[in-house]
Amino acid sequence: MVTQEFIKKLVVKNDNKIVLLVMDGVGGLPNEFEKTEIESAYTPNLDEVVKHAITGIADPVSMGITPGSGPGHLGIFGYDPVKWEIGRGVLSALGIGFPIKKKDVAARGNFATLDKDGKIVDRRAGRIPTELCKKLTEMIQNEIKEIDGVKIFIRPVMDYRFVVILRGEGLSDKIADTDPQVTGVKPLPAKALSKEAEKTAEILNKFIEKAHEIIKDQHPANGLLLRGFAEYPDIPTMEEVYGLHPAAIATYPMYKGLAKLVGMDILDVPGMEITDELKVLKENYDKYDFFYFHVKKTDSYGEDGNFEAKVHLIEEVDKTIVPEILKLKPTVFAITGDHSTPAKMKQHSFHGVPFVLYSENARPDRAEYFSEREIGTKGGLGRFEAKNEIILMLAHAMKLKKFGA
Amino acid sequence: MVTQEFIKKLVVKNDNKIVLLVMDGVGGLPNEFEKTEIESAYTPNLDEVVKHAITGIADPVSMGITPGSGPGHLGIFGYDPVKWEIGRGVLSALGIGFPIKKKDVAARGNFATLDKDGKIVDRRAGRIPTELCKKLTEMIQNEIKEIDGVKIFIRPVMDYRFVVILRGEGLSDKIADTDPQVTGVKPLPAKALSKEAEKTAEILNKFIEKAHEIIKDQHPANGLLLRGFAEYPDIPTMEEVYGLHPAAIATYPMYKGLAKLVGMDILDVPGMEITDELKVLKENYDKYDFFYFHVKKTDSYGEDGNFEAKVHLIEEVDKTIVPEILKLKPTVFAITGDHSTPAKMKQHSFHGVPFVLYSENARPDRAEYFSEREIGTKGGLGRFEAKNEIILMLAHAMKLKKFGA
Repeated sequence: MVTQEFIKKLVVKNDNKIVLLVMDGVGGLPNEFEKTEIESAYTPNLDEVVKHAITGIADPVSMGITPGSGPGHLGIFGYDPVKWEIGRGVLSALGIGFPIKKKDVAARGNFATLDKDGKIVDRRAGRIPTELCKKLTEMIQNEIKEIDGVKIFIRPVMDYRFVVILRGEGLSDKIADTDPQVTGVKPLPAKALSKEAEKTAEILNKFIEKAHEIIKDQHPANGLLLRGFAEYPDIPTMEEVYGLHPAAIATYPMYKGLAKLVGMDILDVPGMEITDELKVLKENYDKYDFFYFHVKKTDSYGEDGNFEAKVHLIEEVDKTIVPEILKLKPTVFAITGDHSTPAKMKQHSFHGVPFVLYSENARPDRAEYFSEREIGTKGGLGRFEAKNEIILMLAHAMKLKKFGA
Repeated sequence: MVTQEFIKKLVVKNDNKIVLLVMDGVGGLPNEFEKTEIESAYTPNLDEVVKHAITGIADPVSMGITPGSGPGHLGIFGYDPVKWEIGRGVLSALGIGFPIKKKDVAARGNFATLDKDGKIVDRRAGRIPTELCKKLTEMIQNEIKEIDGVKIFIRPVMDYRFVVILRGEGLSDKIADTDPQVTGVKPLPAKALSKEAEKTAEILNKFIEKAHEIIKDQHPANGLLLRGFAEYPDIPTMEEVYGLHPAAIATYPMYKGLAKLVGMDILDVPGMEITDELKVLKENYDKYDFFYFHVKKTDSYGEDGNFEAKVHLIEEVDKTIVPEILKLKPTVFAITGDHSTPAKMKQHSFHGVPFVLYSENARPDRAEYFSEREIGTKGGLGRFEAKNEIILMLAHAMKLKKFGA
């Protein structure tokens, strides 16, 4: 089996550039006219790219598996998503852009309503607004900075949800949820699931006790529940494995976080539009050899069930972004999604995702336009797992030497 | 790598139904008109299903491997056939419908002809008929029920072949064959291949000695040879791994046994016709969420070299079974075979098998009719290993949640 350790030994550095355009959740399902979102979009530029590219349908994790954004992106970046399972707490911290570090332990939190006996009445504290959540986390953070030499960070996420990060020596994420998932009982104490987590559990229980004291009069948000404890993994960077000097161009915190996780430089995008992102790509084009260019809203429109808006965004990418990237003449220009989000399903799905690799070094196949079915039946790469994509990009950029003599 | 342990964590239960139609050995090879059995059959209903399905060519085990019925079916049921190798003895016991249990040890046996010095003259005792085999096993069973607290069962299979099952504590299948595979020498003693098998070897040698005493005057079948010792494996059930409540509709003991092995309920079929099986499916449709519907004779006709009969049976399935299953409106209707049995070869073969998944949640591909070549070149699943099939069925039945956030 080809692993990252294997690839690492083949890497050669050169100045050839790779641009990876990820349209989040781009894959879809047919509408009443039997066309998917991609197939409904007018995409002359993407079609021209496909004509001269090698293409295929990728499974982000494996056939039939619906990935979250974490596994979906790790697959594209060449990290086996099953091996590198990133815990919920860490993803929450990444999602709000918190500068989480290796060995930090993070957990997701809910503000909850407790009765006078300390029993849970409402696990979501009446879904308090984000503003109140922000105020409450600040109250707690002002009083609690450190416990037993371990730094504590608490940050609002959205509505009643927040995230807690512990930073210090000897921490572990082998901690059971304090959220019992039911009402009428007290929150559970933080319980160590293994010997090495006992110190962490002790610190967490001190934190919870103090925090409850601080918010005890803040009805309805007078309690907190923690779950999804996760340690920031000791994952190798893309520089370490692939010898790349990579940069991420994304507008949403989660994707910046995932890119940072694998060691990319996160470029500051002065706006939320894809044209803002394009500007950043052009300005920084000389400084890196790998660009991850993330388009978020294909996924958002899919989750909204807005077929039309998803179609129009694909058309906008085709018109505005694709020709400009082509003008930069990267050695490899790859186009894909991290998963499918069919408007019909309004959620991430298990359907394969088109992958298009355009390069002067590619052997073109017979796919003639951008379409799941066209690529799925005429694509030269067939159906394959997404973790191979980075290897293909490196290969076409002549960044992998011959294996063996 | 995606394992059953990984899938187990993603399972969600719902009432959506899956019907899996397995036409045993359905894949074939072209005849003089350059058409396979499937391609020669007139199958308007299957063609219509294919038009709206996602399809592909599955390798039951892996490319180039010809599977027996055991590995062929385990693959379809999502059990890696290489990991879960079911020993010959156990398959023989399953094949005759013996109610074998976890930890039982089973072996295949031959009646043989021994000379006056106890040396083997004929390893198959002149291929005695099944009737005589039945009489001999009854003679032995009547005299031997138990040895050293271990229950002994001996049952006829066919011609000179029988099966022996040991049931008790502390048994092991680490026993060398007593069949030396040559004539002119004595049968080998049952020899333990590891320390924990010594008790089992001792019991077997006592059994062989007693049995030889019982049949010593039954020329030409006056000796017995044992091989393929195998323990009934501690394999997880489909309910444990996939959360399914599965039922098997099959007419032959081997397939009922394989279904029982993975924990299916075996529904009683009052006849040997596919219409009898269909009746059972309809009657039990409300009681289960997964149905394994087995059609045996596609394989039997393949093994007979009867191309025409195999074609006609495929047509009968198309006409009689497929429309009736469609009327039940299962969320997922999958159609495949456990391997190919080309009439040209008169045996199981290593050729890929078409897999068709029909569901409102599928993204249809460009295959337009039921044919190995059509599906192999226009199928959206490409070429893949059969152990992914159950994952695809679960995914399309919305029985797997998102992996990661």
